[in-house]
Amino acid sequence: MDCTNIWKIDEKKIEKRENELHESIFTIGNGFLGIRGNFIEGYSEDFPHKRGTFINGFYEVFGIKYGEWAYGYPEEKEIMINNVDSNNIELTVDDEKIKVGKTKILEHKRTLNMREGYLERETTYETSKGKRFRLRVLKIVSFIKKNLCIYKISIKMLHGSAEINLKTGLQLKNNDFEKTNDPRVENGNSAEILLLEKQKVADKSLTQLYKTKNSDLSIVVKEKVECSGLEFENGNHVATFFLNEGQEKSVEKKTGYYFFPLEEKTDLVKYSEESFEKTAELNFEEIKKMQRNYLKNFWENSSIKIEGDPETSQGLNFNLFNLLQYVGKNGKTNISAKGLSGEGYSGHYFWDTEIYMFPFFLYTNPKIARELLKFRYNILPQARKRARELAFTKGALFPWRTISGRESSAYYPAGTAQFHINADICHALKKYVESTEDYDFLREYGAEMLFEAARIWEEMSSKDPLRNDKYCINCVTGPDEYTALINNNYYTNLMAKEHLKYAAYTSRWLENNYKDDYIKIIKKIKLSKTEVDEWQKISENIYLPEVGENGITPQDDSFLHKEKWDLENTPKDKFPLLLHYHPLVIYRYQVCKQADVVLAQFLHGDKFSLKQKKRDFHYYNSITTHDSSLSKSIFSIVGNEVGEKKLSYEYFFENVRTDLDDKHSNSKWGIHTASMGGSWLCVVFGFAGMRTYEDELSFNPDIPDRWKSFSFMINYKNNILNIIINKETTTYELIKGDKIKFKHVNKKVMLDKEKRSLILKNE
Amino acid sequence: MDCTNIWKIDEKKIEKRENELHESIFTIGNGFLGIRGNFIEGYSEDFPHKRGTFINGFYEVFGIKYGEWAYGYPEEKEIMINNVDSNNIELTVDDEKIKVGKTKILEHKRTLNMREGYLERETTYETSKGKRFRLRVLKIVSFIKKNLCIYKISIKMLHGSAEINLKTGLQLKNNDFEKTNDPRVENGNSAEILLLEKQKVADKSLTQLYKTKNSDLSIVVKEKVECSGLEFENGNHVATFFLNEGQEKSVEKKTGYYFFPLEEKTDLVKYSEESFEKTAELNFEEIKKMQRNYLKNFWENSSIKIEGDPETSQGLNFNLFNLLQYVGKNGKTNISAKGLSGEGYSGHYFWDTEIYMFPFFLYTNPKIARELLKFRYNILPQARKRARELAFTKGALFPWRTISGRESSAYYPAGTAQFHINADICHALKKYVESTEDYDFLREYGAEMLFEAARIWEEMSSKDPLRNDKYCINCVTGPDEYTALINNNYYTNLMAKEHLKYAAYTSRWLENNYKDDYIKIIKKIKLSKTEVDEWQKISENIYLPEVGENGITPQDDSFLHKEKWDLENTPKDKFPLLLHYHPLVIYRYQVCKQADVVLAQFLHGDKFSLKQKKRDFHYYNSITTHDSSLSKSIFSIVGNEVGEKKLSYEYFFENVRTDLDDKHSNSKWGIHTASMGGSWLCVVFGFAGMRTYEDELSFNPDIPDRWKSFSFMINYKNNILNIIINKETTTYELIKGDKIKFKHVNKKVMLDKEKRSLILKNE
Repeated sequence: MDCTNIWKIDEKKIEKRENELHESIFTIGNGFLGIRGNFIEGYSEDFPHKRGTFINGFYEVFGIKYGEWAYGYPEEKEIMINNVDSNNIELTVDDEKIKVGKTKILEHKRTLNMREGYLERETTYETSKGKRFRLRVLKIVSFIKKNLCIYKISIKMLHGSAEINLKTGLQLKNNDFEKTNDPRVENGNSAEILLLEKQKVADKSLTQLYKTKNSDLSIVVKEKVECSGLEFENGNHVATFFLNEGQEKSVEKKTGYYFFPLEEKTDLVKYSEESFEKTAELNFEEIKKMQRNYLKNFWENSSIKIEGDPETSQGLNFNLFNLLQYVGKNGKTNISAKGLSGEGYSGHYFWDTEIYMFPFFLYTNPKIARELLKFRYNILPQARKRARELAFTKGALFPWRTISGRESSAYYPAGTAQFHINADICHALKKYVESTEDYDFLREYGAEMLFEAARIWEEMSSKDPLRNDKYCINCVTGPDEYTALINNNYYTNLMAKEHLKYAAYTSRWLENNYKDDYIKIIKKIKLSKTEVDEWQKISENIYLPEVGENGITPQDDSFLHKEKWDLENTPKDKFPLLLHYHPLVIYRYQVCKQADVVLAQFLHGDKFSLKQKKRDFHYYNSITTHDSSLSKSIFSIVGNEVGEKKLSYEYFFENVRTDLDDKHSNSKWGIHTASMGGSWLCVVFGFAGMRTYEDELSFNPDIPDRWKSFSFMINYKNNILNIIINKETTTYELIKGDKIKFKHVNKKVMLDKEKRSLILKNE
Repeated sequence: MDCTNIWKIDEKKIEKRENELHESIFTIGNGFLGIRGNFIEGYSEDFPHKRGTFINGFYEVFGIKYGEWAYGYPEEKEIMINNVDSNNIELTVDDEKIKVGKTKILEHKRTLNMREGYLERETTYETSKGKRFRLRVLKIVSFIKKNLCIYKISIKMLHGSAEINLKTGLQLKNNDFEKTNDPRVENGNSAEILLLEKQKVADKSLTQLYKTKNSDLSIVVKEKVECSGLEFENGNHVATFFLNEGQEKSVEKKTGYYFFPLEEKTDLVKYSEESFEKTAELNFEEIKKMQRNYLKNFWENSSIKIEGDPETSQGLNFNLFNLLQYVGKNGKTNISAKGLSGEGYSGHYFWDTEIYMFPFFLYTNPKIARELLKFRYNILPQARKRARELAFTKGALFPWRTISGRESSAYYPAGTAQFHINADICHALKKYVESTEDYDFLREYGAEMLFEAARIWEEMSSKDPLRNDKYCINCVTGPDEYTALINNNYYTNLMAKEHLKYAAYTSRWLENNYKDDYIKIIKKIKLSKTEVDEWQKISENIYLPEVGENGITPQDDSFLHKEKWDLENTPKDKFPLLLHYHPLVIYRYQVCKQADVVLAQFLHGDKFSLKQKKRDFHYYNSITTHDSSLSKSIFSIVGNEVGEKKLSYEYFFENVRTDLDDKHSNSKWGIHTASMGGSWLCVVFGFAGMRTYEDELSFNPDIPDRWKSFSFMINYKNNILNIIINKETTTYELIKGDKIKFKHVNKKVMLDKEKRSLILKNE
């Protein structure tokens, strides 16, 4: 992708081998709805494409077939449905069907305008009879009117005159994704899943009500098309008109998708009628203006401005724009590994949210961060049920992968065994409460999930008599999935330790400050003081694998005993290893898919000396394949911290353009949201060296050699701080708020009403 | 089951709740063919039954569906087919269909005669019109004519006269096994699998040729019925006759099953015609006589005679009889976990053969033992292929479960991860060569598989710098499947050590004694001397988990660090644990399904002090659930050795009647062959204390309190030794052979031509 304009993504040619990738990249969405960048006129059969329309939280439930069953395996899993497709017209010019891949294209340009939030394309076609016309399509999935997708379709005759026939409707045969063995991809089968319950055709508009077979979800899809001479034919809008050379005709098509996630009880049909009636009154220009205003506000708070690195700037803009496009903002949905841009990972939410994406929202759009945590609160009932299935007598175990709360991982060694998800979520909660001081959230939702999640560690940890009765956590899988079912994963144990500590602290804080809330919660979840004391005790006495003679922090009890994988002599086509070696081979070696110890050292860097981090960074860096798109960002951040400036920037640069440059050769299945979140982390936590250890904001700025300056804003304790980092100095500006304390390098500083800005040397 | 006669199993009533269990117990077979004890007249629909006819080595291949795929997972698995059913007649009396569960039964008796090898039953029915008749069926699956099953069916009118209609044929709808989640059970679906290719009806006989869809196996089934007034109707033999009160009519039905395992190229149809023609000439009495003679010889060599414990005697007779009934004797088949008595474990062969059953055959019927090893040699090509799939650059990895050599385990942590199977097979090979001195076998087959299997350890073991560069074996599962994917499983490491040692020794021995053979093999498998040296080096430097402060031999690196499962407070209905807890729960605790360290201490007891064995026995005994039917026999043997006489007998007694008393509540799916083999081990290696460490035969006799005496015979280095153990003394008699040296307690003794017997005190 070229980057002449950092706010735009341009495509200048439609090419077979890149089309599916570009469909992912040109997906537009709003956190509720996502529509892949399929060309609206459709494709010839042999032209590679993957149609896709996705609604966040809308899924079907499928039975899981196992080679061999075992107790407690999830019997069903959720898969995000490839939904009703509005992104299509049947365009006929003089009885000739126009299709990408069949009709001759003379010129083409497609642009994703990220600053204003719309997709625009112009394609000049020539028919077999030599007539030329230009097809222009503008498309918006509205951030303000979340149910709406609006299309403005114009056809202009450039050479010759022709009869144009335009048919538009709602299609259900989305699912033309090919089958694959790759466990990271999963296809639903929309045509068989969505059952049409009702269809109404009236007054230029079409309404369809669909239901799913198993998950019992309903969706109403409404379509309104404005165009003179419009007629209805079998549920499709059809217009036939004649255009002379130079004449142009435009059509506005509006589609409304209505669905309530997590079982809201409101009448969907009624609600959709009222809502769509109002929304459909707005025309394209009005929607476009609303979109622009919404994004203006977003970019003001969220953008990272860099002087001297347009490729990176474009990459960052694309990443942050996509995070906004795919994040659920209603407390009932979350953000999936591929957003709403493809069927990869079945549309599931993972720990990716809390560890890789949450910080971006927290420090730029804290309201969205709140909704992400609220989602976890809302799935507590299923998490409690899952804990019982795993023989925990109390507490809640969050699903490793899910849409509505049901554990949907069908390979437990790299799924359910990643118990660290409980601690990851509570880590995000702690950061949220500290940064926003939203104690209402903690009282109403946070504390309950914090306590319930902590109970899992209580029952999982056991005193090891061979280790002075330290508490150990056995048979888990850490973030690095190239080692599974091991004991005392460093990351897991440290995260659990901090989780338990925070849970015990919060319990006492609640008791002292909000006695009523405290009593309500402990009654509801039958929590005793002894239990809270136990949390404290475990937290203080949890075992952390000890640095041995070689000076390295062990990833787990056995990791450093194993043989190192011979990465140097592994052919390139054998990566990612998971697609080319049996788990029994991979697990036997010292080889990492992604950051594990190094991730712990990022999240809890204050618990390690710089020397230790340095040693561990080099060690683990040498045995990590980065087969996961979650890996390089963390190595970039910690690399920068330990003085590996060049490598740090390299990792960052590869990470920031993961999807634009298709670094993992699989973005056609959907973009990588966690990697996108990671790129923001790289700049803010990496180069700017921001940390919030012990609730204390600090910066340790550095700047990549290639950059002249960079700046970004941070929302912290209801202040907004603008940070501008140059080669020599850093400028801090208090944009909003009365007072903010933080550290620059190791110096305590403060900004307030009087002193709103400050320029400091970068050490 | 009552035990008035130790050579017979009697059933005196047909009962709903026991019928399926009894079907397993009354299965008759010959190692090639097995037919469950289904009542030939059939059942009413609601009467619990599982029809079953099984041919050893006859399987279908099914695709395996995984919840989530990973590289190297077997894509297909083999399942023993529930085969063409000859064990059925349609019996109509005065137009009333006679069925178990519907027709009134006045009297019933069924007897399995184990000494002579036939099944006999008599049932007196009363029709709804009050007519009474006796149905008598004698059934033999011939050991001599392995393709043949013969039925003698007699009907006698006891009260009233009636028109009898008798229809007999070959049925394909065997598969009425219910569906279950239990991973230890698996159902094929015979009706859909077996395709009838040809049917020929001629001259009182019926011939059918079937083929399988995927595994491309053919089977010819031939039926001949002798009965006056016989007619053919749609491929069935039909006879209608009138019987007055007191009159009796008999029918002889012969069925021949023809199948060549492991792709023999002979013409099956032609072969079956010639063979069946000859066989069918024999009448029931002739077949019965041949059977009696065959078994006379078997029991002479194999039986264990006990004075004072008829329950045990019956149990042992049943067990040894069943081992003979189910063991493949052609080098192309083996003995499955459920023999040919049910669909449990898909008819797969496991390590059970080598560790639990092989010793019985080796020391009583060494020719059969040879064929069992030959089977492993014959599947070397698939084992090599599997090794490549697991990224081994050379060598062969034997399948954890298989029929024709294909790895058919669909859950690798308790399947493929049990690499110890390679060493188990070679342990059996070593014992075979030592005991039989059959060096021809070693030269022609044994050495090659020994070397190929050893290579796996060479590539799997790695030097651990944190353990003085000792060789470690990581990420395996040992015999105890309640702990998976661990490092340095004691059993695995010790067995690998001995395997490598024997491989290196054999290589040198071959080079020195049979240079031509040596050269042929090393050329064929590209073996170098360096590699053999490497085996020796690894064997000498392999790491064995060290006894720690608590004095216990660790099952693996992490086992003793874990919390102990609270067995005392686990409700009885939660056993076996594997059916009631997620693997992630079970694996987290010190809890064993079966003997692991203790098994190592049985097989290689000379490597441990008695004190150590004692401590380990008590420790592991206290944390073992014996959820596996392979467990109690080993604990009985080692228990006896460490002085736990009472417990040892208890475990033995439960083990010896595993199936007769349905101790695991699952014998309806098939009997437990390994447990049966284990009961023989208990007597010979347990009570008689026989060992063959370092190729030296020794006895350390003891006798359970309840017994007056016991005796058995052992075939060792071409001698046959009879051992009679009384309360005070042991008598050794050299029955066959010129000279035998052995130890009694710790004393060296010898028998030879001059001195053929000896009475010694039991110390």
